Amino acid sequence: MLKFQSQLHAPENPRSTKTSIMIIGGAEDKIHGREILQTFFNRSGGQEAKLAIIPSASREPLLVGDRYRNIFSDMGAKEITIFDIRDREAASASQWQSFLEECTGVFMTGGDQLRLCGLLADTPVMQTVREKAQGGEITLAGTSAGAAVMGEYMIAGGGSGESPNRSLVDLTTGLAIVPQLLVDQHFHNRNRMARLISAIASYPDRIGIGIDEDTCIIVEGDGLLSAIGKGTVTIVDPKNMTGNNYSEVGATDPLSLCNLKVHLLCHGGRYNMHSREIIAESGPTGSH
Amino acid sequence: MLKFQSQLHAPENPRSTKTSIMIIGGAEDKIHGREILQTFFNRSGGQEAKLAIIPSASREPLLVGDRYRNIFSDMGAKEITIFDIRDREAASASQWQSFLEECTGVFMTGGDQLRLCGLLADTPVMQTVREKAQGGEITLAGTSAGAAVMGEYMIAGGGSGESPNRSLVDLTTGLAIVPQLLVDQHFHNRNRMARLISAIASYPDRIGIGIDEDTCIIVEGDGLLSAIGKGTVTIVDPKNMTGNNYSEVGATDPLSLCNLKVHLLCHGGRYNMHSREIIAESGPTGSH
Repeated sequence: MLKFQSQLHAPENPRSTKTSIMIIGGAEDKIHGREILQTFFNRSGGQEAKLAIIPSASREPLLVGDRYRNIFSDMGAKEITIFDIRDREAASASQWQSFLEECTGVFMTGGDQLRLCGLLADTPVMQTVREKAQGGEITLAGTSAGAAVMGEYMIAGGGSGESPNRSLVDLTTGLAIVPQLLVDQHFHNRNRMARLISAIASYPDRIGIGIDEDTCIIVEGDGLLSAIGKGTVTIVDPKNMTGNNYSEVGATDPLSLCNLKVHLLCHGGRYNMHSREIIAESGPTGSH
Repeated sequence: MLKFQSQLHAPENPRSTKTSIMIIGGAEDKIHGREILQTFFNRSGGQEAKLAIIPSASREPLLVGDRYRNIFSDMGAKEITIFDIRDREAASASQWQSFLEECTGVFMTGGDQLRLCGLLADTPVMQTVREKAQGGEITLAGTSAGAAVMGEYMIAGGGSGESPNRSLVDLTTGLAIVPQLLVDQHFHNRNRMARLISAIASYPDRIGIGIDEDTCIIVEGDGLLSAIGKGTVTIVDPKNMTGNNYSEVGATDPLSLCNLKVHLLCHGGRYNMHSREIIAESGPTGSH
């Protein structure tokens, strides 16, 4: 792991304009190596980056927005705009669309994923962000609540400390940026394996992704997922899953589920979400 | 699940002398349906049962022993002896061996699994219990700490709320009653998935078994595991597991592990630990 460490804290990350979607498990390092945020900055164009920060998940959008503005400003971003959208009407404003024309990276902060979806689902600004992210025109990152919204279906909340069961997790629709994934965050930190398993039981045609804090999965356009950061990314693949009671919505009966495939990726680990296979190790991908 | 419920609370469980090893996830129902304890009683011979209670895991062995004595006495056991073994010398006493000659069931209570192993590992009394349990001459049950000791390797303690890593779990040797299994208990109740995964990374030739509270896996002589009770039994099968760093003892690096197979059994679910396959549903096995 020494090799990993030295790369983690490398002061100079190579600049890249490679586009990607970054799903961050929350509590990413904002002070020291800032590996994940630096990777977002690099992939958004580095010194040429024109960044939009969407703090709408938070009830303190200016405070949270400013914190990220300062970080990316320190890194040397060319332009940063905070999309301070607090009601759905504001999401139609032409100023956001104009900025998105030139924008190279969009960052969605933490907060409450229901708030974020409530404000931005099916709005012109989100439609543009999604299209540009899916088309590889911008780098899109979301952390914590901003990560939770990435799938077509979303974990809005839930519990822990119980046998997996359908009532352990609250599910709703997300922003469908990477529709195939069902994302959970602060994952092992908040003991969320049971709730992710409970969620995937309801949507066995998706792939469950549990991302630890200060950890990120980078989704490339070709379906390649690469892990970076301090913790693990847990992949719960229900492709071959069978079960006798996972269709009962809201039931509190413990779930019976067989043949879940589980992978734990750490920094440098890679997975192809189309073939659903781990890609053999070839060293960390890091911020390259 | 209505069918399950009605069987769970059936006042009359059919008596059986079928032998088995019962691994209980702790906090089993001692007041109402007492399904798991009733199953132990039935399998130990019902009204003909001659039971030994081993409370040595507990620092209050008389209190804990008496509690189970009262329960099995209420059920109508023919004879009950508390093996109040508080030092290793006492474990050699001939009185235990005499009782074990006639004994039909042995119950190991909760407490501290390190204490239980410290007092009983490699003693004549445990050697006899193990041989008789493995040979199908007695029904052996262990709950909580009494469950943890069942494998050749044992989880002595550990943490939660972290990315799985080798230092998250303390491993030592158990009583090797079902050597193939690596058992954890109070499983989803105490969010122990990460520690079981961390443990299995160290012993990839074993099968990880996480048992929820008031839940039990019954191990038959032919390698059949049957779940009964309220929660789930989580099976972590690392047979096809690959990883890049799971051999580093005590390391705090997050684990990279691929191709874990995970099953969740609930009441009535069955698994063959030799073929490592789920056995198709044919209704709950319950207390039959």
